[in-house]
Amino acid sequence: MPIDLKMNPLKGVIPPMATLLSDANTLDLQGTTKLIDHLMHGGVHGLFVLGTTGECTNIAYPMRKELIEFACRQVAGRIPVLVGITDTSPAESLSLARVAADAGADAVVAAPPYYFGLGERELISYFGRLADQLPLPLYLYNMPSHTKTSLTGAAVLELSSHPNILGLKDSSGNAVYFNGMLYAFKDRPDFTLLVGPEEMMASAVLMGGHGGVSGGANMFPRLYVDLYTAATQGNLQEVARLQQMVMEIAAEIYALGSYGSSFLKGLKASMAVLGLGNGRLSPPLEAFDAQNMKQIENRLKGLKAYQTYA
Amino acid sequence: MPIDLKMNPLKGVIPPMATLLSDANTLDLQGTTKLIDHLMHGGVHGLFVLGTTGECTNIAYPMRKELIEFACRQVAGRIPVLVGITDTSPAESLSLARVAADAGADAVVAAPPYYFGLGERELISYFGRLADQLPLPLYLYNMPSHTKTSLTGAAVLELSSHPNILGLKDSSGNAVYFNGMLYAFKDRPDFTLLVGPEEMMASAVLMGGHGGVSGGANMFPRLYVDLYTAATQGNLQEVARLQQMVMEIAAEIYALGSYGSSFLKGLKASMAVLGLGNGRLSPPLEAFDAQNMKQIENRLKGLKAYQTYA
Amino acid sequence: MPIDLKMNPLKGVIPPMATLLSDANTLDLQGTTKLIDHLMHGGVHGLFVLGTTGECTNIAYPMRKELIEFACRQVAGRIPVLVGITDTSPAESLSLARVAADAGADAVVAAPPYYFGLGERELISYFGRLADQLPLPLYLYNMPSHTKTSLTGAAVLELSSHPNILGLKDSSGNAVYFNGMLYAFKDRPDFTLLVGPEEMMASAVLMGGHGGVSGGANMFPRLYVDLYTAATQGNLQEVARLQQMVMEIAAEIYALGSYGSSFLKGLKASMAVLGLGNGRLSPPLEAFDAQNMKQIENRLKGLKAYQTYA
Amino acid sequence: MPIDLKMNPLKGVIPPMATLLSDANTLDLQGTTKLIDHLMHGGVHGLFVLGTTGECTNIAYPMRKELIEFACRQVAGRIPVLVGITDTSPAESLSLARVAADAGADAVVAAPPYYFGLGERELISYFGRLADQLPLPLYLYNMPSHTKTSLTGAAVLELSSHPNILGLKDSSGNAVYFNGMLYAFKDRPDFTLLVGPEEMMASAVLMGGHGGVSGGANMFPRLYVDLYTAATQGNLQEVARLQQMVMEIAAEIYALGSYGSSFLKGLKASMAVLGLGNGRLSPPLEAFDAQNMKQIENRLKGLKAYQTYA
Repeated sequence: MPIDLKMNPLKGVIPPMATLLSDANTLDLQGTTKLIDHLMHGGVHGLFVLGTTGECTNIAYPMRKELIEFACRQVAGRIPVLVGITDTSPAESLSLARVAADAGADAVVAAPPYYFGLGERELISYFGRLADQLPLPLYLYNMPSHTKTSLTGAAVLELSSHPNILGLKDSSGNAVYFNGMLYAFKDRPDFTLLVGPEEMMASAVLMGGHGGVSGGANMFPRLYVDLYTAATQGNLQEVARLQQMVMEIAAEIYALGSYGSSFLKGLKASMAVLGLGNGRLSPPLEAFDAQNMKQIENRLKGLKAYQTYA
Repeated sequence: MPIDLKMNPLKGVIPPMATLLSDANTLDLQGTTKLIDHLMHGGVHGLFVLGTTGECTNIAYPMRKELIEFACRQVAGRIPVLVGITDTSPAESLSLARVAADAGADAVVAAPPYYFGLGERELISYFGRLADQLPLPLYLYNMPSHTKTSLTGAAVLELSSHPNILGLKDSSGNAVYFNGMLYAFKDRPDFTLLVGPEEMMASAVLMGGHGGVSGGANMFPRLYVDLYTAATQGNLQEVARLQQMVMEIAAEIYALGSYGSSFLKGLKASMAVLGLGNGRLSPPLEAFDAQNMKQIENRLKGLKAYQTYA
Repeated sequence: MPIDLKMNPLKGVIPPMATLLSDANTLDLQGTTKLIDHLMHGGVHGLFVLGTTGECTNIAYPMRKELIEFACRQVAGRIPVLVGITDTSPAESLSLARVAADAGADAVVAAPPYYFGLGERELISYFGRLADQLPLPLYLYNMPSHTKTSLTGAAVLELSSHPNILGLKDSSGNAVYFNGMLYAFKDRPDFTLLVGPEEMMASAVLMGGHGGVSGGANMFPRLYVDLYTAATQGNLQEVARLQQMVMEIAAEIYALGSYGSSFLKGLKASMAVLGLGNGRLSPPLEAFDAQNMKQIENRLKGLKAYQTYA
Repeated sequence: MPIDLKMNPLKGVIPPMATLLSDANTLDLQGTTKLIDHLMHGGVHGLFVLGTTGECTNIAYPMRKELIEFACRQVAGRIPVLVGITDTSPAESLSLARVAADAGADAVVAAPPYYFGLGERELISYFGRLADQLPLPLYLYNMPSHTKTSLTGAAVLELSSHPNILGLKDSSGNAVYFNGMLYAFKDRPDFTLLVGPEEMMASAVLMGGHGGVSGGANMFPRLYVDLYTAATQGNLQEVARLQQMVMEIAAEIYALGSYGSSFLKGLKASMAVLGLGNGRLSPPLEAFDAQNMKQIENRLKGLKAYQTYA
């Protein structure tokens, strides 16, 4: 039976799990097992499978289904599992959601369709209908850099009255937007507001947000959990100390080269150094070459986070 | 055996066939048969299945495969069939291409991946690798309004040396870009340059382009074929006369309401009036309501194109 | 003699003063006097004349010069006066800066040129040369929504070594960017980092930022000063209480209608209700009509901030 | 007395004259005299001073006024002189327009304000009011890449009923938009439709457009006049021959480096080689360095246009 996220609203650090691959068309299940253990051991509060960090849209559908089932089996109900079902075709989203429900996932996450752009009213209608049909609760996902379409505050507000829509993950990076959501939902503690970019997780939580979907937690889950905890406790000194580590990771690991996918390349390269996977990305994305891998390794080993949490 | 598009470069009007649906999850095969007959009878020079006008990315994969097979069977080698395989996952693109090859299609068409944006070098590498693996020749597809990513002229030039890449369909609407391509390929008559928006098909052909992928040809194929022919013959008076009809269609049928999908809504509503399908769009897009349908009917019947070509 | 902002780095709430007008071509000097008194009385830490909230680029040059001189005379050295010199023509920027220096202003503020977009290297060269020639220290101004061009973090870093560049005002709203700047300048407490949008001022200060250029301070300067103070003291309970007021202002006053300039229309309408100016905007912007003015009045009087600070 | 452009609608090649500078703050009047002679001798049908190619917004106001007066004096009524008054401040636009009227210019040209973006209704109101107050007729100027704001077709249509608005210069590069305007104004031969980018001038004229504001005419005015004439005569063979030259210029001269201002850098470098000016750009733009200058010289001398028209 899924965890009741309506009664127990989602909070904390919910890593967007990296999708580990043996080769372009094969999941690295051994690596995934190790990664899930690593995350659980780090104290994360949930797991988000097939988010953007999980390279969702790149993965062929049969592999997505395999991963959903595998992850749910590994987690085995210990923490909530959220499954990304973002798609351009509602039928495919529903199909993924059914796999998730059958596998024992606890909720699904969907960003706006990203080929044809929908207007605000069309988005509201789209998500409303999707939520009607889904076998699991839905978290909305605002990701304008990838979907072209923004989920306006007004759209989120209107959709929040749907009994099957439980929250929002905002990856816009826009603090005005996120703080606007915090204000709009100030009397709805049950509506979960999570922030995507880890660089703003602490400030989002300090201002009342419920947590973050921090990609870096794939490397150092405990760091992000500690930062989240410090923020919920209002321990500003500790927040400042840990935020330095988080920002150092972003500066050193996510910004090598000037690729749109520098974040993913750096994250997976670092994870490989940490014994988590082989650094491979799913096509059409490409991993760093050996020279960049070496650079990441050197940078990683110089990080305060590495020295503290590896 | 597929038509050899390398020896006989593609030219003319290649309609992006509308995907007709009985309901959200069922193809209207009877309607599709009628539509293909209608297009063939109108003298079109090829058929493009699962383009943007075909609502490609909205259609669940099993239906895409069914449509590819059905269309190829109906066309039966009389004109080239091109199949859209644009996807975020190369594995899914390849899977569609294999279905297309098995069904007897003649080529495939792919726009850049549209969730993660690729840089110029990454795009070149992506398309090069895709072309290596495809069982059919490839036409590149520039569609920045939907994919976020532009296929730069430099990228097209570099990719044009690949033996399996035969041309470009440009739907940017940007005449500077398209004329730049015409100039760059002035000594490569074998590299097909097609233009997407029908409003600029005639001028593109007058300047040396090889044809157009005109959505309106779903309604009035003969009109676009006549316009193409007039342009290839340099008959400017005839071009001017027919261009008026094409522009009247755009003004009256494609611009009702201010939806991102007004074009598709209006096209399918008009097709329904013409006895081609029921006006339905694939989710998440929605058809016009009854009132708008009526408006389109009235506008359609007032068109010069309707009076001449219906 | 100007305040030495190099020795005493700027901090706190520096309102972007609204430019009050009697009619399209005449400053409301009486209103401006009252507004400056109001701001000083509210405890603000500086004054920013001719920022975006000051409708900078709309104001004819002679009026800009008159306003600079008038404001400096009124402030009379009690707090730092910063003057916006953003322009497309460096000669005009310099000319405004000279007026500012002669009038006794303490610094100038410049965003990237906003007609021709400059690349990163060109921007660095532009600002470097500008800073060389300016008679006053310069704060960089990141305002991509209005200038099209982003001041990248790398550009700010490189420019920060210029002895005449003292800080950055970031109005991108992007917390990832701003937190990246806080990290990059963690060992440069002398380099002032101010945030534009008031909705994120508190979180920016909690994370180590030096203050905000909060437009709403034109109405309720003390509120923003109190919020800034609470944030610098790490008083999270007080931050939460005041942040509610700030967000209520944003939700009620800045979002009426769906104009690009709803913020300015609402701000000036509210100021008029508060006895500060007549609500007029500088052409080509237009004030709210009587009905919207009335709506703003009603909303304003219902605000917690109004009840506490008016 | 100005030329009556209402009775004699503007047609043909109206070059956007490059603004030649001796140094950053001084016009090169001798060069300008030579350039105007060169253009007149090339048979151009009008002159557009202070357009984007004229680096309008970079030039300090006193220099703009000097240039307007100087150009009008040199042209002395032989062909229409249009003056760019695009500005963020309507008062400054009006001030420039008065200078233009006093100097004997025939019309002014204005793009949307480009710092604060206006909505469609606001733009209509802005241009309507501007046209009411202007001492000269107005041509609208669509230039979204620089102003962020598009002049929608609907806005142009509504504004076209203003007795003082005589036409549109469209620099969007979007042939769908421009052809839409041609259709919308098919019964208004008095409303002038000019296209900006020279790469699409011929096709625009073939489809019924009235001419172009071709930057390359600063180098080779006769080429563009010949191309325009061939297009008006429907001489497609000649159009094709000359279009090759125009496209070669674009490929060789306007695309060196990857600057936003590569066009301007290359144009002015080439003009310098041709004895027109010194290659200098107005700050904040920078001229090519000596090495790039040399490259442009070599490329220029290899052009068919150079061999035919220099």
